[in-house]
Amino acid sequence: MSEVEKGVKDLKVKEQKARAEKMKAEGKFALKTPKGTKDFGSSQMVVREKVLGIMTEIFKKHGAEAIDTPVFELKEVLMGKYGEEGGKLVYDLADQGGEACSLRYDLTVPFARYVAMNKLANLKRYHIAKVYRRDNPVMTKGRFREFYQCDFDIAGQYDSMLPDAECLKIADEVLSTLDLGEFEIRLNHRALLEGIFALSGIDTKDFKTVCSSVDKLDKVPWETVRDELVNEKKIPADAVNHLEKYVRARELASNPTNEDLLKIFETFENDRVKVAVNELRLLLEYCELYGCNKRVVFEPSLARGLDYYTGVIYEVIVKEFSFVPKNANPENPEENCSVGSVAAGGRYDTLVGMFSASAGKKRTDIPCVGISFGIERLFSIMEMKHKSEETGLRTNATDVLVASAQKGLLKERMKIARILWDANIRTELPYKANPKLLNQLQYAEERIIPWVVLLGEQELNNGLVKIRNVKTREETEVKIDDLVEELKKRLS
Amino acid sequence: MSEVEKGVKDLKVKEQKARAEKMKAEGKFALKTPKGTKDFGSSQMVVREKVLGIMTEIFKKHGAEAIDTPVFELKEVLMGKYGEEGGKLVYDLADQGGEACSLRYDLTVPFARYVAMNKLANLKRYHIAKVYRRDNPVMTKGRFREFYQCDFDIAGQYDSMLPDAECLKIADEVLSTLDLGEFEIRLNHRALLEGIFALSGIDTKDFKTVCSSVDKLDKVPWETVRDELVNEKKIPADAVNHLEKYVRARELASNPTNEDLLKIFETFENDRVKVAVNELRLLLEYCELYGCNKRVVFEPSLARGLDYYTGVIYEVIVKEFSFVPKNANPENPEENCSVGSVAAGGRYDTLVGMFSASAGKKRTDIPCVGISFGIERLFSIMEMKHKSEETGLRTNATDVLVASAQKGLLKERMKIARILWDANIRTELPYKANPKLLNQLQYAEERIIPWVVLLGEQELNNGLVKIRNVKTREETEVKIDDLVEELKKRLS
Repeated sequence: MSEVEKGVKDLKVKEQKARAEKMKAEGKFALKTPKGTKDFGSSQMVVREKVLGIMTEIFKKHGAEAIDTPVFELKEVLMGKYGEEGGKLVYDLADQGGEACSLRYDLTVPFARYVAMNKLANLKRYHIAKVYRRDNPVMTKGRFREFYQCDFDIAGQYDSMLPDAECLKIADEVLSTLDLGEFEIRLNHRALLEGIFALSGIDTKDFKTVCSSVDKLDKVPWETVRDELVNEKKIPADAVNHLEKYVRARELASNPTNEDLLKIFETFENDRVKVAVNELRLLLEYCELYGCNKRVVFEPSLARGLDYYTGVIYEVIVKEFSFVPKNANPENPEENCSVGSVAAGGRYDTLVGMFSASAGKKRTDIPCVGISFGIERLFSIMEMKHKSEETGLRTNATDVLVASAQKGLLKERMKIARILWDANIRTELPYKANPKLLNQLQYAEERIIPWVVLLGEQELNNGLVKIRNVKTREETEVKIDDLVEELKKRLS
Repeated sequence: MSEVEKGVKDLKVKEQKARAEKMKAEGKFALKTPKGTKDFGSSQMVVREKVLGIMTEIFKKHGAEAIDTPVFELKEVLMGKYGEEGGKLVYDLADQGGEACSLRYDLTVPFARYVAMNKLANLKRYHIAKVYRRDNPVMTKGRFREFYQCDFDIAGQYDSMLPDAECLKIADEVLSTLDLGEFEIRLNHRALLEGIFALSGIDTKDFKTVCSSVDKLDKVPWETVRDELVNEKKIPADAVNHLEKYVRARELASNPTNEDLLKIFETFENDRVKVAVNELRLLLEYCELYGCNKRVVFEPSLARGLDYYTGVIYEVIVKEFSFVPKNANPENPEENCSVGSVAAGGRYDTLVGMFSASAGKKRTDIPCVGISFGIERLFSIMEMKHKSEETGLRTNATDVLVASAQKGLLKERMKIARILWDANIRTELPYKANPKLLNQLQYAEERIIPWVVLLGEQELNNGLVKIRNVKTREETEVKIDDLVEELKKRLS
């Protein structure tokens, strides 16, 4: 930045501050939503409801039940569940007397609290709700402070990998049905990471911090990760060199199959690795039976951040869109195509037990596995898709506008509207005593309302009204007594 | 309370405190949701989704669009909108750096902020979301600190009483469709209250405090209200005596019609009263055209608490249930029947303008009218109704359980489940390698799953499976190739 640019920027910041202070002094304030949050207008709501409808239908198809929990939890419930970084991002409620509470950070911890509190032995549930993180928002990239999560989880003591396979099947169904583009389900196992870290000679106490570096491998080259591990985190270079061969196994082999990689790892002399290889192999076999194996990729570098995972972990990424985004930047195809992770999850067998134990009761572990969809990203992609297809999205569901061809006739219009409403036909009428015909027809066209019922005094005297097809402008006279039937015929 | 009772109570409180402190010292805590909040289990969610589905369908039938706003707003947005009492009940977020924010208290103020911020000239929207009040919760009576509101509002400059009439029509449709019992829509006008207060000689500055006393008339006798006004609030006895004749007009006349009462008030020499009478008469006429006039009762004592109303105000009360509640208390029929207000609303023509003005812009008033449904009460009544009818409520939507008649056959079951899922048939299979047949059939019965697909080795060898009707226990052999078609036939 040049001196002049810097000067201009400083002046602007100063001006902005002065304006804010002046407004405050006058008891005024900016009309906006809080930082990192946004309103959903009706055209966004239509997309949102479409996406959520598809997901809900798939969850129900797999026998899941819905539950809901409060937006805020007791502070103790959330503490110590999200690692050092995550913990800092939790929103607290002000101390206004009473219990210390925090806004929920995800839906998994409230789910585990719910299972423990109600002493449930098993539960297959979905939960669609907003969560809160005091993160640095990047609104254009779909990173918000208030955002939706959409979770499917299975709690219960079951035979190995059966619920896990169903979670991957669901991920496959959701992404296939949304039809947003090519996707990949990346798969790894917490025990595999533990095993190869141990084999590399990495100290157990460094597990989390090494994980968080390794997890960056899908975004930055190995050299950057290596540098961070050796120079910043002071992991011995020897250990890091060992680790490289393991976590980059897929990259370093020439186009290996999942089984090729598993064959490499199964030779390792480490019990944790053996557990992981057996479970991953079984899971991949089940995925084949469920017809969702083609998109599953065993990726030894996948690490994931959260503390509570104990078994398989996975993440779904959209690799390429099924459409050409409007306003795509031809200079930078990466930017247009890559949205990264749209869902993630894994097995967490000890979280419910942590809650029963911290409540001072006998510890009861209920194994759990689940998947959480990053709905905001799916919304964004779906919105881009709709824009690229330039299909007019309806924000209302109105089927009929009751209009009058001449001045007045308000009461007659109201009577007709009543008949249609009482027959469950989606109907609007202008809130004007004397609306102009042109304005009414324009309203119907703008709102993409397919039919207009048109009233005229002469027709009314003969017990008739006109039905007008907004698209073709064709008009048909019908008896008022037959109006409901005639409209239902056209709407079915 | 006797001395002994008091002693026992004190001891209990002491014991409870000691227990809490001991748990805290051990790093333990009670497994619960915060005070005034609750989880929704799957059987409650089913009721909730049913009620919300009915309401959403009615809102859409009237051409409304959905919007959503953040759970928290800038503190300034909420300040000064809910009167002295309401303002104290707003939840604040902790100061963790950044803007001062509060949890939304209702959906009306965020709606007005949204209209002003987006400079909309009109909007007909519905919004279903949770709101937050630090009130004293009474969980058994459906008074929570976190609860749903379900709002329908019309913003825009329209001809008199047309949007208002549609709000009452919607209230009538919602309550009729839910079929919970006899209900009444009580109606009044802010200008009528202003007029009769002035005619009684009550000072303008006392308007709000007198309103809040008068509003209690549906719960306590006039003598109590009078006592509060004269002795506590120091309103001159003369003025209160005058006021009585007006606010008790319905009570004191012998079974008057709405028009009878309007005829009394229209003789009053007061401009505000005249405005109110004209608007109420027009509204009642429109309600007749919409076929919802029979439940509308003009009630001069209805006052409502919130500051922002400027025109008609109304409230919907359920007077008598359509069913006999289970565990009804025969000693106290009142308790079983009366749930009071389930919806309320009115006209607020200046709220949007307040926002455009406080944002330092030119004040633009957008007249608004709306209705807010107290969904928690409607949920409670609906739950009571379901319990009284003892109809088994399904919490899942599963149509088919894939079971095996003998040990093993896991992979075969998985293949069949995959076929059904891919054909969009709602299917579950037990997460067990060797489930017992009896347990599987019991699971289907408990979960009210209507069909079981039963696998046996011999049938499989011939390309066959059995379809079992869970209710009749009838079994039919079908070819695996025909299974989807056969099931779809049974499910349609």
